[in-house]
Order: sequence, then C-alpha cells, then structure tokens
Amino acid sequence: MLISDLGEQGLLKLIQPYCLPNTIGDDGAILHPPAGCELVVTTDVLVDGVHFSDQTITPFDVGWRSVAANLSDLAAMGAVPLGITVGLSLPANLSVVWLEQLYAGMQACLERYGTGIVGGDLTRSSVTTVAITALGAVGADRVIARSTAQIDDAIVVTGYHGDSHAGLQLLLDPELGRDVSKFIDANDLQAHRQRLITAHQRPQPRLDLLPILDRLRLNSSQIFSISGMDSSDGLADAIVQICRSSRVGAIISRRNLPISPALTQMFPDTALSSALYGGEDFELVLCLPQPIALELVDQIGTGAEIIGKITRSTDILLVDDTSQYPPIQLDLHSGFKHF
Amino acid sequence: MLISDLGEQGLLKLIQPYCLPNTIGDDGAILHPPAGCELVVTTDVLVDGVHFSDQTITPFDVGWRSVAANLSDLAAMGAVPLGITVGLSLPANLSVVWLEQLYAGMQACLERYGTGIVGGDLTRSSVTTVAITALGAVGADRVIARSTAQIDDAIVVTGYHGDSHAGLQLLLDPELGRDVSKFIDANDLQAHRQRLITAHQRPQPRLDLLPILDRLRLNSSQIFSISGMDSSDGLADAIVQICRSSRVGAIISRRNLPISPALTQMFPDTALSSALYGGEDFELVLCLPQPIALELVDQIGTGAEIIGKITRSTDILLVDDTSQYPPIQLDLHSGFKHF
Repeated sequence: MLISDLGEQGLLKLIQPYCLPNTIGDDGAILHPPAGCELVVTTDVLVDGVHFSDQTITPFDVGWRSVAANLSDLAAMGAVPLGITVGLSLPANLSVVWLEQLYAGMQACLERYGTGIVGGDLTRSSVTTVAITALGAVGADRVIARSTAQIDDAIVVTGYHGDSHAGLQLLLDPELGRDVSKFIDANDLQAHRQRLITAHQRPQPRLDLLPILDRLRLNSSQIFSISGMDSSDGLADAIVQICRSSRVGAIISRRNLPISPALTQMFPDTALSSALYGGEDFELVLCLPQPIALELVDQIGTGAEIIGKITRSTDILLVDDTSQYPPIQLDLHSGFKHF
Repeated sequence: MLISDLGEQGLLKLIQPYCLPNTIGDDGAILHPPAGCELVVTTDVLVDGVHFSDQTITPFDVGWRSVAANLSDLAAMGAVPLGITVGLSLPANLSVVWLEQLYAGMQACLERYGTGIVGGDLTRSSVTTVAITALGAVGADRVIARSTAQIDDAIVVTGYHGDSHAGLQLLLDPELGRDVSKFIDANDLQAHRQRLITAHQRPQPRLDLLPILDRLRLNSSQIFSISGMDSSDGLADAIVQICRSSRVGAIISRRNLPISPALTQMFPDTALSSALYGGEDFELVLCLPQPIALELVDQIGTGAEIIGKITRSTDILLVDDTSQYPPIQLDLHSGFKHF
C-alpha cells in the first residue's frame, strides 16, 4: 500500500501510536520541563540520497539514526531529553510499510533513552526528508559548551572512532576487506564486519554519560566545568571546533586515538583517516581537568581514552610519541562536506 | 553567486547574523523559559512546489509565511514565542540572494513578534524544504486546547477568512477578477487586489490576541477556559476539529462568517467557499462563554465575529437565518489535502 492510498487522516492515524500519549491533537504539544532547568533545542535534517539510501540502510535504521543524531546533540550539551518533533516530507508513492518501519526505528531509539515523539508535521515532496528537533533539559551549572575548554584540560573521547564510516564502506561495497581475510580467522572477520556495520546502522548516543558526569561532579572536591561536543562530523572536526570556540589549541597523541580492533584489522591502511574524519560515531569529545578525566575514562571502560590535552598555542597538532611520524596540523577541510 | 560557491562554513557565516546572539555555535541552543510555564512546541514543513513557488511568492515572503504559520500555532495554544529552529534543505544551485531573502523574511516576521532564530540545520537536497520548529511558553491555566469547548460556548473568529486563498488565485492567474471590474471603481479594484494578495503573502499570526485574552480573564468575575485552534487549514476544518476533539457539535450562521468587502466584491460566487475551505488565513477560532465572546469581538474590531455556538448534538451545521439556503453539514473533506 502507498502513502497516497491512505490519505492525510489515515496517515495521521498510522503515526499516532508512535507518539507519546496526550501530546498530539493540538496546534502544538505541551511539555513540562523540570523547574530550574535550561531548555536545550537542536535540529537535524536527513535527506534521502544524501544522508541515507535504501542501498545501505533499512527504514527502521533511518529512524534509529535520525533520532540518535539528535539525542547525541542533547548529550553533547549535557541535556536529558524531553521529546522530539518530526517534520516529514514524503513522496506520495512511498510504501506505507517504509513509513511504519521508519517510525518503529525512531520509537525504538527513543524508548531506549526514555523519551518519545511529541509532535510533528507531514507533507508531500519529491524527496523523503526527515527533519527532527529534539528538546532537552539541563541544569545551568551542567551545560557542556564548546567554548569553555581550559588550558591543560585533558581531552577525553568516549569510544572508538571510525567504525561507522568503515561500516558504511562495507555496505556500499561488500567485496571490501577481502584482501585482509587471509590474515583473519573467519569467525573474527564475520564479527568485525558486523561490528562495523552495526556502528553505522545503530549508533548509540552517549546519554549514558550524563549520570557518570553528575557523580564525578558530586564526588569531586574541585568545582570544574566540562567543555565539549559530539563527534558526529568527525573526531578531527570536533577537536578543531572546540579549540576555535575556546581560542586554544591541542596536542593529540596519535597512539591514543581509540580505534577498534575490528577497524584496525579490517582496514589497516585507512583506519586512522576513518577515525579522524569518518564522522557519525556520535561519541563525545570532552575537555576537563586531568584527574577527573582519568576517573571518567576508567568508569566508561572500553574505547574511552585521554587522547591529548588543551594548549595555550592555537596549533592543533597530531603527534606521534615514538617520532615515527612527523606532527601534523588538524583542520576542518578533510571532514564531510554538505555543500 | 550560488550556494555551492560559498561552501558550508561560508553558508553558516551568512546565516549567523539572522540568528539571535549567543544561541548558535554549540550542538544545541540554550533557552530560558519563564519559571512556572509550560513549554509549547510546534513544527511545520514547507516544500517548494507544494507550499510555495517562485511564481506566486518571493523568497522574502516564503520566509515570512513559514515563520507566521508556526507563530500562529503558538498563538493558537495561547503561547508567547521563545524562538524557532530552522531546518533547511537546499539545492546546491540555489542562489545566495534567494537564501538571504528567505532569512530576511523570517527575521522580519520574527522581529515583529519579538522573537528570533535560535538554531537549525542546513543540508543539501534536490528540493528546497523549510522545516521550522517554534517554541513558546504558556501559563498552565492559559493553555488553549481543541478539546475543551463547552456546550453553549460562543464561537469567535478573529478576522476575515478566504482572503489568502483568493490572493493566491490572483497570483496564479492575474486575469482573474476581470469580469467584476466593470462594477467596481478602478481604485477600489486595485486596493482589493492588493489586500487579497497581501493576505496571502504576509499573513499575521494573531499573537496580539494573547494580552487581550489575559485582560478579559483578569477583568472577569467568572473563571472560564478558552478552547480553539488556528484556521490555517481552513475555517470549516478548524470548526470540525474543535467539535470532534471536544465531542460536541456547532451551529454556524452563514450570515456571520467574516468575509472581507474585497473578497465579496472580487469573487461574489466563490467567496463563501474560499472563506470556509480556502485555508492559510491564520486567524484563531475560539470557543468561550457568550458574554466574554461579545467583549472579545468588540476589542478585536474589524473582521472579528461571533459566528455561532457549540451544541450538544454532534452535528456541525451551517445555517441561514433568512432560510434562503438549507442547512448544510460541514466536514473535513473539502479542505486542502496534503496527500
């Protein structure tokens, strides 16, 4: 069945079960932010053929990913989600099953993080476009901003980088990775492939870090601010954006970049470049005092690393502790370009 | 110059001056809702070729209209605007001037209503799509909902209906209205045309009503709730939606429908149908006790009317006091269909 067979009222009926109760049915939805909190709002637009395609991703995963990207932005601000709105543009000849799967994927990701859809709009277009706005709440003293990194802060990344990009490459070209298969056990190879593909299809926004950060603040005798952002546009991009906003520089240790065994073994030649510029890993890059950073990395576990520190000089250098490679300057030019 | 010549960073620089200070530059924007208020959120998506076209509307007016539609939804909930986010999808060959004019139009409408852009996203697409989410604040006892209309409430509309639809017809076919020109003074004809076209290009969300409603509440010895919504999808649609949500019916007086002299004189045969089903007038349809309704209409002035009342029977009837026309049942089927 096609969207056009359902009609507008039919479509609204189809979508309603995926929305939080008592939010749909008026010109706007009503939310109740906790008293004394700031409101955080963030918007992402995903376009068919640009951000997703039926070749590499199911409609369920389009839904999951589009929600995950927005929740990741909330996590990057230190904010707990209050709900999202979904502005959908759809071709009339889209199948109803595609739309149901999209909403099922959004709902699965939202439920996992204790939130839901509170409103939206639905319109006709020649291109499927998913515009999501996520709303969150954060205590004024817990806002994570890009512009407050302090000299000598440790730079923490919360997990592996490059897996999502490698997963996309594998989906685009299933023959990839054949040349390394003779060095890897067949079971390991299968597990590696699956890990990389899952990283692309089902990214996990790091909202789980917020209670960890709260505990660190509570247990610390020191009052400290946390600066940072998410790595949705790539790890290098995140480091550069934070440094520019904070008018500082950074020294990043090449050896400390968290790259998964799956990525290292499957793509030995391109692992570093994927980790730096691949994007869409949806981890957090956080700047905070060294002793707190050590505790944080310890509590997060696998994949989390202190990758370097903030410097007074505004250079942003990737250095090799063993001097095998010369230092290189990180910049924005190698990341994903929308235009 | 084209969008693609600017690059992503260039585009962001171009857009920044149109955004409220200190809101852009992080993963999300931070807003400070007034203490003790509910948060209202509403989303609208406008697509090139569906909701606007270069034939009938300038990019400035696309910006104005897309903001006005969202602010109207806030007004319909009784909410004062806190800000909007703009999710834009753009073809790479769009001109930079088009984009600047779009933002200038959005900003002009936002400034008029004391608010601004607080965030957004920008991405490539083959179709220009403007997805706006507006945020507002409303006291819990001042929420205007569709579902709370009371039997015997008066139904108030806040202004003329049908002008926007007639204006669009004139833009699509400038020859229209020629057959009435022999009955109308040339100056009047020109003024009428301009009024109808302006109604389409620069709709005014009725946020000006919120302080009027506040004063009526303050001065009334009676505690009363106001039910309603905006008439963006047509006056008939609004009446039907309110009645269905509230499980009531309505009797609407044909003679009391507010139709402008411009519409009546330019389109004598289709004025009623435009007023009922044309849509995009962005007025409010409000249900409230009769004595308060009389005061409200008096305070709004030109165009505002009590058009009927809420009934226990769930019939929604358009009646003629002079019995010249038989009663007709209003329904949703004649309104604008997205699919």
